[in-house]
Amino acid sequence: MKEIAVIGIGITKFGELWEKSLRDIAVESAMNCLEDAGTDRIDSINIGCMSSGLFIGQEHLASLIADYLGRLDIPSCRVESACASGGLAVRNACMEIATGVSDYALAIGVEKMTDVGMGKATYALASAADQDYEAFHGITFPGLYAMLARAHMERYGTTREQLAQVSVKNHYNGSMNPNAQFPFKITQDTVLNSTMIADPLRLMDCSPVTDGAAAVLLTTVEEAKKLKKHPLVVISGFGSAADAIALSHRKELTELQAVKTSAAKALKMAGRTIDDIDFAEVHDCFTISEILVLESMGIIGPGKGGPATVDGYTALDGKFPVNPSGGLKSKGHPVGATGVAQIFEVVNQLRGNSEKRQIPGVKTGLTQNMGGSGGSSVCHILEAK
Amino acid sequence: MKEIAVIGIGITKFGELWEKSLRDIAVESAMNCLEDAGTDRIDSINIGCMSSGLFIGQEHLASLIADYLGRLDIPSCRVESACASGGLAVRNACMEIATGVSDYALAIGVEKMTDVGMGKATYALASAADQDYEAFHGITFPGLYAMLARAHMERYGTTREQLAQVSVKNHYNGSMNPNAQFPFKITQDTVLNSTMIADPLRLMDCSPVTDGAAAVLLTTVEEAKKLKKHPLVVISGFGSAADAIALSHRKELTELQAVKTSAAKALKMAGRTIDDIDFAEVHDCFTISEILVLESMGIIGPGKGGPATVDGYTALDGKFPVNPSGGLKSKGHPVGATGVAQIFEVVNQLRGNSEKRQIPGVKTGLTQNMGGSGGSSVCHILEAK
Repeated sequence: MKEIAVIGIGITKFGELWEKSLRDIAVESAMNCLEDAGTDRIDSINIGCMSSGLFIGQEHLASLIADYLGRLDIPSCRVESACASGGLAVRNACMEIATGVSDYALAIGVEKMTDVGMGKATYALASAADQDYEAFHGITFPGLYAMLARAHMERYGTTREQLAQVSVKNHYNGSMNPNAQFPFKITQDTVLNSTMIADPLRLMDCSPVTDGAAAVLLTTVEEAKKLKKHPLVVISGFGSAADAIALSHRKELTELQAVKTSAAKALKMAGRTIDDIDFAEVHDCFTISEILVLESMGIIGPGKGGPATVDGYTALDGKFPVNPSGGLKSKGHPVGATGVAQIFEVVNQLRGNSEKRQIPGVKTGLTQNMGGSGGSSVCHILEAK
Repeated sequence: MKEIAVIGIGITKFGELWEKSLRDIAVESAMNCLEDAGTDRIDSINIGCMSSGLFIGQEHLASLIADYLGRLDIPSCRVESACASGGLAVRNACMEIATGVSDYALAIGVEKMTDVGMGKATYALASAADQDYEAFHGITFPGLYAMLARAHMERYGTTREQLAQVSVKNHYNGSMNPNAQFPFKITQDTVLNSTMIADPLRLMDCSPVTDGAAAVLLTTVEEAKKLKKHPLVVISGFGSAADAIALSHRKELTELQAVKTSAAKALKMAGRTIDDIDFAEVHDCFTISEILVLESMGIIGPGKGGPATVDGYTALDGKFPVNPSGGLKSKGHPVGATGVAQIFEVVNQLRGNSEKRQIPGVKTGLTQNMGGSGGSSVCHILEAK
């Protein structure tokens, strides 16, 4: 397999982008990415998008985006694994480079979620759960994660305040991210006094409904060295895994098996252990998710995620910073774009370009992107060389 | 890149399978495939499905299918390129094998289309066209292909009777396919007297709305030789390309550029020319599509597709048999499954197992799977070794 480098990154503002369509933001992120890369060569396109069918009545993004990028005649593919679609698009782009089928592989993540009423957005998102055994019976994503939170609280004594601290930390980080949907600081009281959504989760425990897109351009390390536009950042490992889609099919609720396996695979491919990683962008679609993910990957011991968050272990200046971008909570969560936006943040940090939210001296970063309530997960290991 | 072999194929009955769900038929095709392969090893799953979101309110098939196949912990991915989703799933499975990331890669194509009313199926299918510039204004797929048919008739003098003959031929072939949705013979009169759908296309020019699934298991040639269960069939080339999604963006209406490019790429990878190919399964979603595809790939000269069909060139006993399975018209067209079902037919023919519809002595076959009105296309070259 050929070694893979990231030579371009691009992103749009995240938020309610009512004046822009899906094709507009997908192309905007890609053009920003090509500008950053200093090349306009693309040999293939992989697009991560969860549900453009249900959100805007448009499938066949492979053709649509190739068309509006003016890049016909090349292989183009849309991949979907619910909210892990973006991570999967990057994994597929890695496969294009690794085989040598493409020398320049573009991955785009995109979702346009605000063109429908709230009820329809909730219906679309629930299609990531088991339609027959979960969604049909009325459960929504806040409800599924509320059950995971309850299980964690029961087993480990995780508190409401600890959950709130995940949101407080991520909003602090996001307050320094100009592309974030909600770039402002909040306090524990903001979270604890916000509207109850699905007990114990309140509004400020939940990531928002967002429009946005992000793009990365991959090539071989050999090609990247020729361009020399940026410090060399490589993708040294990727891992992907599935788990049961319905919570009732899982062996365990206080650990996410797909997260554990996908991270272990990515680390193995990179020849690294979790102790070699300096920081991570992880899938905090709800506050409990970040805690579950950190414990499942072995960054923090079982049941220690809540206390570690309160102690500042995962803060921007902590021992293992998590979600310097602001995470899904503050930055926003355009579901199909999230996995690519995580790569954007990690590459920017590894280049030392993250301005006020820069973590000093980081050399290795990890991304973890989750589908549904943990039914799938995709991880990448990135390293500055 | 490692060489790729097909060691297992599986399919379900195509038709209105009201008593079975999407997960049932996906798993049924996969189990048939593993039975055929004589192994139950799967290292990764790629699922082609166009619009389970709009058809049954279910995304996240990567998790759902891995779950119901009892294969958690492995990479699982759904890919979508409208009606070319199945072909793209096979291409992605090829990439898994070629990189060495997987030694056994399963590709499944599936669509459950009959659980919604007809109006909703037409809406879902129209999401493969440009939503903003085509579908929103009321055009449906029969309408788009009717315009392509009109352009071809105007330019080359293609006749209504020639179009009808595509359907007559494919129904003749399909009458010998026990899995076909409509396994019966028809005459030119059946087509010419059927209900007008979108002038000049009548009901019997159109492929039906279908439930169905198909699966193929790929491995390396080295592994396949060890198993020795079937004659060795290899995938020697694959090619994929995009074109403008909307007809109004195309330079040309009487040739499908994505088809031309994808076939040329697949042939180049295989080190073959079109003259080396013995037969093909192609995307006859409408009668005009088969003619356009054959001309675009250079199997028949421009404008000669209609007369060649009437002359029997593409018949089962003709010089270049096309759609021995019965094609989308007679076999049925569960959109996401079609590309994988094409591989099923070609492998079965190359193994000499196609019974009454067996083409004698075939050694090389081609599949061509199309998205939308030609906005994407995926081709594979298969060879008996």
